[in-house]
Amino acid sequence: MRRKTGSDSLFIYTAHVNAEIVAIGSELLTPFRQDTNSLYLTEKLNQLGISVIFKVIVGDSLQQLTTAAAQAMARAELVIFMGGLGPTEDDLTREAVAASLGLPLRRDMSIVSALEKRFAERGWKMAPNNHKQADVIAGAAVLPNANGTAPGQWIAGRYDGAEKIVLLLPGPPHELKALFEEQCWPRLKAKIPEQHIATRVLKIAMMGESQCDARVAPIYKQFEDVETTILAGAGEIQLHLKTKAASLEQASARLNELVDKLEEELQDFVFSDNGDSLEQIVGYYLQMRNATLAVAESCTGGLLAERITSIGGSSRYFLGGAVVYSNELKTEFADVPAELIEMHGAVSKQVAVALAEGIRKRCRASFGIGITGVAGPTGGTPEKPVGLVFHALAGERGTEVVEKRFGGDRNRIRWFASQQALDMVRRKLM
Amino acid sequence: MRRKTGSDSLFIYTAHVNAEIVAIGSELLTPFRQDTNSLYLTEKLNQLGISVIFKVIVGDSLQQLTTAAAQAMARAELVIFMGGLGPTEDDLTREAVAASLGLPLRRDMSIVSALEKRFAERGWKMAPNNHKQADVIAGAAVLPNANGTAPGQWIAGRYDGAEKIVLLLPGPPHELKALFEEQCWPRLKAKIPEQHIATRVLKIAMMGESQCDARVAPIYKQFEDVETTILAGAGEIQLHLKTKAASLEQASARLNELVDKLEEELQDFVFSDNGDSLEQIVGYYLQMRNATLAVAESCTGGLLAERITSIGGSSRYFLGGAVVYSNELKTEFADVPAELIEMHGAVSKQVAVALAEGIRKRCRASFGIGITGVAGPTGGTPEKPVGLVFHALAGERGTEVVEKRFGGDRNRIRWFASQQALDMVRRKLM
Repeated sequence: MRRKTGSDSLFIYTAHVNAEIVAIGSELLTPFRQDTNSLYLTEKLNQLGISVIFKVIVGDSLQQLTTAAAQAMARAELVIFMGGLGPTEDDLTREAVAASLGLPLRRDMSIVSALEKRFAERGWKMAPNNHKQADVIAGAAVLPNANGTAPGQWIAGRYDGAEKIVLLLPGPPHELKALFEEQCWPRLKAKIPEQHIATRVLKIAMMGESQCDARVAPIYKQFEDVETTILAGAGEIQLHLKTKAASLEQASARLNELVDKLEEELQDFVFSDNGDSLEQIVGYYLQMRNATLAVAESCTGGLLAERITSIGGSSRYFLGGAVVYSNELKTEFADVPAELIEMHGAVSKQVAVALAEGIRKRCRASFGIGITGVAGPTGGTPEKPVGLVFHALAGERGTEVVEKRFGGDRNRIRWFASQQALDMVRRKLM
Repeated sequence: MRRKTGSDSLFIYTAHVNAEIVAIGSELLTPFRQDTNSLYLTEKLNQLGISVIFKVIVGDSLQQLTTAAAQAMARAELVIFMGGLGPTEDDLTREAVAASLGLPLRRDMSIVSALEKRFAERGWKMAPNNHKQADVIAGAAVLPNANGTAPGQWIAGRYDGAEKIVLLLPGPPHELKALFEEQCWPRLKAKIPEQHIATRVLKIAMMGESQCDARVAPIYKQFEDVETTILAGAGEIQLHLKTKAASLEQASARLNELVDKLEEELQDFVFSDNGDSLEQIVGYYLQMRNATLAVAESCTGGLLAERITSIGGSSRYFLGGAVVYSNELKTEFADVPAELIEMHGAVSKQVAVALAEGIRKRCRASFGIGITGVAGPTGGTPEKPVGLVFHALAGERGTEVVEKRFGGDRNRIRWFASQQALDMVRRKLM
């Protein structure tokens, strides 16, 4: 780097800043491991108004890494390298970035001392290979790593005539996140003119993607200044909204305007506009009403209970329930009459209702859910095909039941069934 | 591409082939979406003896995509482009690759007809923008796409003096996989000398990663010709083994030799050497013994039942059970005496045992599991801290109980507890 100014130069960006993220490590080029840090970094960078234009994954090869570094430096104003900062001979990020910048590495003896101290505190003797973690690119600011041995580095200056910021971050996610949040975020904020970016997420339950898009596209297309991303998962659609304005208030007001119109269109299909999950929303509603819930699951096999209890504090409103895979247990735990099962079959509207009412009574809960269906891959018949599920919700004032035919494999069918059941509770209580 | 030979030239590689995978799409540069196709492709390529040396993710920008294509072509013998083959103006892969190869695009009217037919069959009229999906790079073989509109393309020839293979594949995973498997795999096999590569996966339950590595490293290090990758997850370690030899028999024999030594060292910690999950193994053992299982879960809240029933056909050995979040339900469904809970607390060895024995009896199962613990984040006390879990397994000949203190968050604690319980059943039955 042919730099004119000090490491933390006073240069402040005025135009839009583009970033490239380079993930380093041969394990990231196997079928077993994948870079996930870049998703976190992208979210943070986007909050600062920085776009990610390239992501590169490269192995532990000095030559390939140096090439990747030079290419990244040529096309982005901010280049973030992740990984390859450890003590082994495979850890070559410092060397490659220094070479691509044309800058020397210098061993920082204060880092060596800190490393020695860290090892001594744990009663270990430091192996000499750890010294290379103290090699710092000339002009870089050292970013101490509270959660690991390898410190990060921050370099800001001119490179081939343009201002660049180069970051070296450790690969382990918890080290990277802590270091980025505490040390890189404030430095980036100081370099980049304040962006007033507001974001919102609308979550929609049990609606098809194309049906949803057909209803919302005419609305969000009127808001050209808002970036709208539609993500469709199993039984849930998320609308991610983002906009920039002269102030945060203005940006938020603009999003509120859009959110109001979207909610007016989608009505009660929207279950959250602040990031909460369906499990959480159901929990809030139950607590608000001082109500309790119990479940009797057949084809979902515990998935519904598992989702409800994945929320900390769910014991305040969830009592428990039964996984009634066999017919005998449907009778044993939810008092479903054996004759009813014989008459209508275990997968039937009647048995779903009996499960919901039976488990509600047995658990002395405000609400009871019963689910029975054919999750597949085997067990389907022409009358009761794979994917057919009955969901019943019993309350003080009666029981409702919903029949659905879900597509996909066993996991998808089970997931949709649990989603449908949660959504029935939500709609009942909202 | 200054080519000397026809599209499918007779050139066969003799040296090692390196691949670069380029994923295309601006959505892959957001915090919400991630390329996963490359993991699948890497696995397949590795089976052919091809290494992936670079992965690049680039947005829908003609300039950036053309740069990425040229850089990839310069460093790998096989370059795979995924995505950007659709009908919209954002779909620029064909144009960018053609430009980087210096080859023209030609509209293939037989593809246009096929597209029109596809639309007509669905009763739709084809919009004119779909025509661009029929643009083929000069000399490319067209790869029909049975699951979507955009066909893939295969180009093999000389580029800047070196033999290259270039693949254009659609982005949606089910389209990409079908197309790769049916059309690219045989073509690649014909170009690349047969590799005799054997792979095995050993799975190990409930052992620490460093403890495991300390025991197996001295063994696998003696097998320098075997590539060993250790992956550690929650309560499970996987040892991925891979080797190459003059014949598949030789390669397999070499792996068997290593597997035998590893199993001798790790003994019954190894639960699978053929890819089966712990849930599957437990299912096999129960079926083999003609035995049945029932569970009573407190802190895992249904997760154990959910994992067991995620396996198709689990109704043959899993009867069901109860999620006994409240103390009342521990009594109601598993006959745990209220006094026992009062005396020892709901999280205690005694209650775990009573849950296991009670649920076994109530469900008339061969084996009963009881789990009770503190999943957190709240509810911990100095005597019963967050992460403390009791697991009991009751059978005809008595009940065993295991106390563990798991670290991490609610999800991790619950996962470890379910893993521990499954492993107890496995060890009991093996």
